Amino acid sequence: MYGRIGKITAVAGQRDALAAIVLESTQAIPGCLSYVVATDSAEPDALWITEVWDSAASHRASLTLPAVQGAIAKARPLIGRFGSTVETTPIGGLGLQKAAA
Amino acid sequence: MYGRIGKITAVAGQRDALAAIVLESTQAIPGCLSYVVATDSAEPDALWITEVWDSAASHRASLTLPAVQGAIAKARPLIGRFGSTVETTPIGGLGLQKAAA
Repeated sequence: MYGRIGKITAVAGQRDALAAIVLESTQAIPGCLSYVVATDSAEPDALWITEVWDSAASHRASLTLPAVQGAIAKARPLIGRFGSTVETTPIGGLGLQKAAA
Repeated sequence: MYGRIGKITAVAGQRDALAAIVLESTQAIPGCLSYVVATDSAEPDALWITEVWDSAASHRASLTLPAVQGAIAKARPLIGRFGSTVETTPIGGLGLQKAAA
């Protein structure tokens, strides 16, 4: 498995609009086992995205999907800055769904 | 929903033993919607635990369960240090299972 933990800070006041765009694009993407969008309890403009994929290749491939590319284009003007993204190797737990074909 | 993103660094060489203890304790805990244990791709002794709960109260309650308390006691000698834990409010995504009753 391949995982990512990343923080995105929206342009001031645009966090919820940014979250809505990100959530719209996360519908049964091939190889995606978990994809959770969360607001930060302490920073009003920040979002956390935690992802689990069956492989890094599936994650890379997702970035070429029209739905994802459309979301990235819509989201870009709402993004203030990206925090550093941690890459992980998930080893187990709860809430890892079967990958969509 | 209530979420946590936390990093734990194991005593050198004990990461996998620590991960096994953590994973053992995460079986259908009431209110837990997602709980993923992952190794860090860059730091050999580090684990990331990303959690989604139906409420902060369910998370707090889980810490009093005998299985979880037992796991904490077994894990403690293997923990080198805790990183800062981010508290979040998950708003949606994929892989959020129904809470166990």
